[in-house]
Amino acid sequence: MVMHMEPGKRLTVAVAGASGYAGGEVLRVLLNHPHVEIGALTGASNAGTRLGELQPHLLPLADRVLQPTTTDVLAGHDVVFLALPHGASAAVAAELGDDVLVVDLGADHRLLDPAAWERFYGSEHAGTWPYGLPELPLAGGGRLRDRLAGTRRIAVPGCYPTSVSLALAPGFAAGLLEPTDVVVVAASGTSGAGKALKPHLLGSEVMGSMSPYGVGGGHRHTPEIEQNLALAGGTGVSVSFTPTLAPMSRGILATCTARLAAGVSAADVRGAWARAYADEPFVHLLPEGQWPSTAQVHGGNSCVLQLAVDEHAGRVVVVSAIDNLVKGTAGGAVQSVNAALGLPEDTGLSAVGVAP
Amino acid sequence: MVMHMEPGKRLTVAVAGASGYAGGEVLRVLLNHPHVEIGALTGASNAGTRLGELQPHLLPLADRVLQPTTTDVLAGHDVVFLALPHGASAAVAAELGDDVLVVDLGADHRLLDPAAWERFYGSEHAGTWPYGLPELPLAGGGRLRDRLAGTRRIAVPGCYPTSVSLALAPGFAAGLLEPTDVVVVAASGTSGAGKALKPHLLGSEVMGSMSPYGVGGGHRHTPEIEQNLALAGGTGVSVSFTPTLAPMSRGILATCTARLAAGVSAADVRGAWARAYADEPFVHLLPEGQWPSTAQVHGGNSCVLQLAVDEHAGRVVVVSAIDNLVKGTAGGAVQSVNAALGLPEDTGLSAVGVAP
Amino acid sequence: MVMHMEPGKRLTVAVAGASGYAGGEVLRVLLNHPHVEIGALTGASNAGTRLGELQPHLLPLADRVLQPTTTDVLAGHDVVFLALPHGASAAVAAELGDDVLVVDLGADHRLLDPAAWERFYGSEHAGTWPYGLPELPLAGGGRLRDRLAGTRRIAVPGCYPTSVSLALAPGFAAGLLEPTDVVVVAASGTSGAGKALKPHLLGSEVMGSMSPYGVGGGHRHTPEIEQNLALAGGTGVSVSFTPTLAPMSRGILATCTARLAAGVSAADVRGAWARAYADEPFVHLLPEGQWPSTAQVHGGNSCVLQLAVDEHAGRVVVVSAIDNLVKGTAGGAVQSVNAALGLPEDTGLSAVGVAP
Amino acid sequence: MVMHMEPGKRLTVAVAGASGYAGGEVLRVLLNHPHVEIGALTGASNAGTRLGELQPHLLPLADRVLQPTTTDVLAGHDVVFLALPHGASAAVAAELGDDVLVVDLGADHRLLDPAAWERFYGSEHAGTWPYGLPELPLAGGGRLRDRLAGTRRIAVPGCYPTSVSLALAPGFAAGLLEPTDVVVVAASGTSGAGKALKPHLLGSEVMGSMSPYGVGGGHRHTPEIEQNLALAGGTGVSVSFTPTLAPMSRGILATCTARLAAGVSAADVRGAWARAYADEPFVHLLPEGQWPSTAQVHGGNSCVLQLAVDEHAGRVVVVSAIDNLVKGTAGGAVQSVNAALGLPEDTGLSAVGVAP
Repeated sequence: MVMHMEPGKRLTVAVAGASGYAGGEVLRVLLNHPHVEIGALTGASNAGTRLGELQPHLLPLADRVLQPTTTDVLAGHDVVFLALPHGASAAVAAELGDDVLVVDLGADHRLLDPAAWERFYGSEHAGTWPYGLPELPLAGGGRLRDRLAGTRRIAVPGCYPTSVSLALAPGFAAGLLEPTDVVVVAASGTSGAGKALKPHLLGSEVMGSMSPYGVGGGHRHTPEIEQNLALAGGTGVSVSFTPTLAPMSRGILATCTARLAAGVSAADVRGAWARAYADEPFVHLLPEGQWPSTAQVHGGNSCVLQLAVDEHAGRVVVVSAIDNLVKGTAGGAVQSVNAALGLPEDTGLSAVGVAP
Repeated sequence: MVMHMEPGKRLTVAVAGASGYAGGEVLRVLLNHPHVEIGALTGASNAGTRLGELQPHLLPLADRVLQPTTTDVLAGHDVVFLALPHGASAAVAAELGDDVLVVDLGADHRLLDPAAWERFYGSEHAGTWPYGLPELPLAGGGRLRDRLAGTRRIAVPGCYPTSVSLALAPGFAAGLLEPTDVVVVAASGTSGAGKALKPHLLGSEVMGSMSPYGVGGGHRHTPEIEQNLALAGGTGVSVSFTPTLAPMSRGILATCTARLAAGVSAADVRGAWARAYADEPFVHLLPEGQWPSTAQVHGGNSCVLQLAVDEHAGRVVVVSAIDNLVKGTAGGAVQSVNAALGLPEDTGLSAVGVAP
Repeated sequence: MVMHMEPGKRLTVAVAGASGYAGGEVLRVLLNHPHVEIGALTGASNAGTRLGELQPHLLPLADRVLQPTTTDVLAGHDVVFLALPHGASAAVAAELGDDVLVVDLGADHRLLDPAAWERFYGSEHAGTWPYGLPELPLAGGGRLRDRLAGTRRIAVPGCYPTSVSLALAPGFAAGLLEPTDVVVVAASGTSGAGKALKPHLLGSEVMGSMSPYGVGGGHRHTPEIEQNLALAGGTGVSVSFTPTLAPMSRGILATCTARLAAGVSAADVRGAWARAYADEPFVHLLPEGQWPSTAQVHGGNSCVLQLAVDEHAGRVVVVSAIDNLVKGTAGGAVQSVNAALGLPEDTGLSAVGVAP
Repeated sequence: MVMHMEPGKRLTVAVAGASGYAGGEVLRVLLNHPHVEIGALTGASNAGTRLGELQPHLLPLADRVLQPTTTDVLAGHDVVFLALPHGASAAVAAELGDDVLVVDLGADHRLLDPAAWERFYGSEHAGTWPYGLPELPLAGGGRLRDRLAGTRRIAVPGCYPTSVSLALAPGFAAGLLEPTDVVVVAASGTSGAGKALKPHLLGSEVMGSMSPYGVGGGHRHTPEIEQNLALAGGTGVSVSFTPTLAPMSRGILATCTARLAAGVSAADVRGAWARAYADEPFVHLLPEGQWPSTAQVHGGNSCVLQLAVDEHAGRVVVVSAIDNLVKGTAGGAVQSVNAALGLPEDTGLSAVGVAP
């Protein structure tokens, strides 16, 4: 049975982990959603605190007080967003039951391959949930959104995998790219690292500075990217992925390069990408000559793309820009919730960025 | 006759000067307004250019092409926003006639006193229009919004005057402040200086740097601030106003201090400000102990305030934060348009900031 | 007996608290000092760690290992810099004895008035040391540097007091300013708050944001500023001081305003400031029309000033820019050490900023 | 005849193009050089202007006035730095004659291959000068510094080629890397784009934003990088190079990846890089586990490196950080001048960064 919104009904929504950046952004997006009533907000060490102290930008919710993250508190809502530490969501979801739409903003249920999970996360795999990247083209035709209709469980993609998979998938889907020697270097704003108090995330350290991390294949988003590209048609794909930390609060700029298969022309390339996203409200291939910036997607649910063929190097370079907290987290999550509930996917979501 | 929106009607809106920061922000705000249909967009040297090249964040309008700023192009819209250089708006408004609601984002029609205009702007005064700061309390009771109902002309306040006037007006309205020795130091993001190509506005110059400008009473917003405070009750007020340029794109943080009148207590002060804005959706006095930041109002139409009494110095210090492009320009303008048209003032406007 | 450097001798220097921003900056400055040999470096929780992990920019010292902060480790050096928490320096200095030049980068020995200390710091006063602001003019003639020659104890000024006192002292020394209604609003880079792991200091929070703190007279630098201005001639001075946090790593921009005494002209004002610093290598009054920026002093030991008389408001506005870690901390400290040892004050110090 | 510095002699140095970022940084570096006397400073449209208005951070030179860029003005100096537009330096150098050491900070004389020059720069090649990257290992043994001794002409490398060539050269010199499918993505601070007044370089546009440019092989530094890697041993190397603009004033972070030749181990890799730079004062391979940041090289003449082998992808990833204006421009230039004159290469140069 596909669960659909009834006309005029308002969904009650709870957010577990409302004090962090992901949880806060879910609330910011939901405040603009016409069919949502915001219910319980929970935190761990912050239970008992006014939201106004933790998320002062959410002025309409300033007087809400965080409750502890228990199933009693979360039960009775139509949708529950989980912004919890790794490993915590499966147990919560089990207790909430199948009539609740549970949306995991964490990584627990993203990977199909338990071995990959265990290699990168070092714990037992909690099982796979439908993956919330609606626009991803699938090798056999269709899109990932087809698997979201009616689901009661959604695994929200990682922010890097969102930006990289949308950038490269059309090429694999169209058979234009070699699966080896894919190289991705991405720059992320610091909110991608969360609100954890770590010395290298202090403002004094990050302003005016760029630095890499998770270099050499160790970043946990690598298997997730490869899984997505394989779904799109990139059999046996291997990706060299290097993330870097950039001096900005939000945004991911992903520079994604792959070798072109023999005989592929620049026109083939542009055509494939243009067709892939022609009807997508949130993925935009820019006119030739215009390149994306993270500023243009700041606060919006868009993924903006541009590409160029480098004939000398035999490669295509695709650059994508997203807001890591919106299209890369909260906006993508709400988009998938809309898909699951049979609502227009763009309900309550805006493609417009806040710039300059 | 008060012009009111008829139910179900959509307003057609034109924006003159759509390539700049103010014009772009008007469009960003209007894209979320339920009763607005965006019509002609005009530019000067940019006429003929796709908006997508100039305002790439406004993705839904990317394929719109700017037209020249002529009365022919602007005529026939219900509302026309003018984001034009000083001195240009009066002539345009005269040609548009009285059935069009003309909203001047520039300074031309803000000042009541022609002498002050001529001293600070060096040209002949173009006349005064109703001033679009709805929340400003008036000395004799009431608010400035009372003068906006039904108007066909709106002078949108300057960004600094918005932040400073809302910060200090309750104290003058309640008779708690001395009119002399008012001192204001405000920090603004660089978008306040517009898109003009000036060396000191280059990213290389502004990042990591703070600097003052217009020091010593010369900034054109000084008489506008004093005019507003006088309207609120500050007879004979004189303000030392120093603006500074801060390394951020948006936001104004205004630190406003004034001497307390004899016998005024901290409780008097807090009470006056609390009462002044208790029913205002876009002006927020924070709970004691919490201070505003520009981040919390980034992209939102809010003005957030906090204050403290310094008994040693005999002063109150009020700090306000706004987004200079939203509450300080485009959001405030749309709020006043709503007031003029008899719509709820918050139609299409959000008090929520985009943070972190 | 005045301690003087003997020709050719190298001073051995220890730094206690070498893992923080103040300690690290002392090392950066000392690496350029021709008469200094860097000896023991100590830390608290970081003892045992390579300096390269904590201060990666100090490449020549990368392999140094921090030792615990004990008198055994610190003894035997000619100069010991203490970058320790409040309350710790007096005991260390007592054990080091009078033949060691002890330089306290903390606040413990700055204030003359034990009652002011106790009111603002809440603990017993540890006694007053000679105050390391060599250029400060004194009411009776002379400068503070006169009190530094031969001293074995130096209290390094706070960063805000350095910027504000140098800005306003010439006016009080020359009798041009009223002592009441002095208002100062200053913006500081985040390094002024140290390396402490606090949520509001995360890069995600500070980038793109300005916010105030310590408003209403509560900031501990207030009595220090008033003490300095009183020394310069401002009997009974009271200051309204509001610090703000700016989105940059370094730098203080202090906007300092005071009422002019009756009959004071703009020429009087400019003359007084020009004369006060005509021979100072590190305090610069800019040519008329040019205003300071924190960028121009980034990494250098300069304090750059400009002023304007606001006749309408009856005030002078003086704006000063320093690098809080150099002229405001480590550079000022080394300058005072030079003064104490009879070296040219600018030995090993540069007035040049790193810009853009 | 090798020109050597005589003991005690001071070099007179002129800088043509002293108003730009490169020229200003040459002056900043030279102010710390013990054997240099700064002579004529020239500009084009800025001739007649005080340097203090153009480069306010160079306080000791504030009262210098720019002269026009003519051979009369430049003649008679021992060393002349040219920070001129493309195409201007050859004529100036010809007139200055062979007894003057001419240092071209522009691109005119970097490339060996006239065809590559014409393809990327669209004009006739002006001839090749000795290339100022002293540390670059050469395929047949030795370093590029061997070609600098005694030269009277130096072509200063581009900033990206400096960071990328130092990162990858050891692998090609040791035969560990495949020459094809080299992929480099680099992020640069905005000063790399110079002081030109372009809309996308405004602070409002760059703060909070990352964006690519010159994508697809078109950036002019691509042939220069390939030339350097070929010199080091990378016969037939082809590089996919994507530069991006980062929200910071200074710094380049270059992420450089190449396929490992068959049978190469991680230990081979680390050993090759460690040996390559063991004796270099300005190129640092960090201890394993520590990654470079641009903050740590801000203002210093260092290139800091780290690498990791990604066995899954069959690649090495080398990340290098430089200050584009120091090691990437002015510092590298002075280092090469030192080499040309027989001075210790580090004379007047510091490996220390200004952080945080």
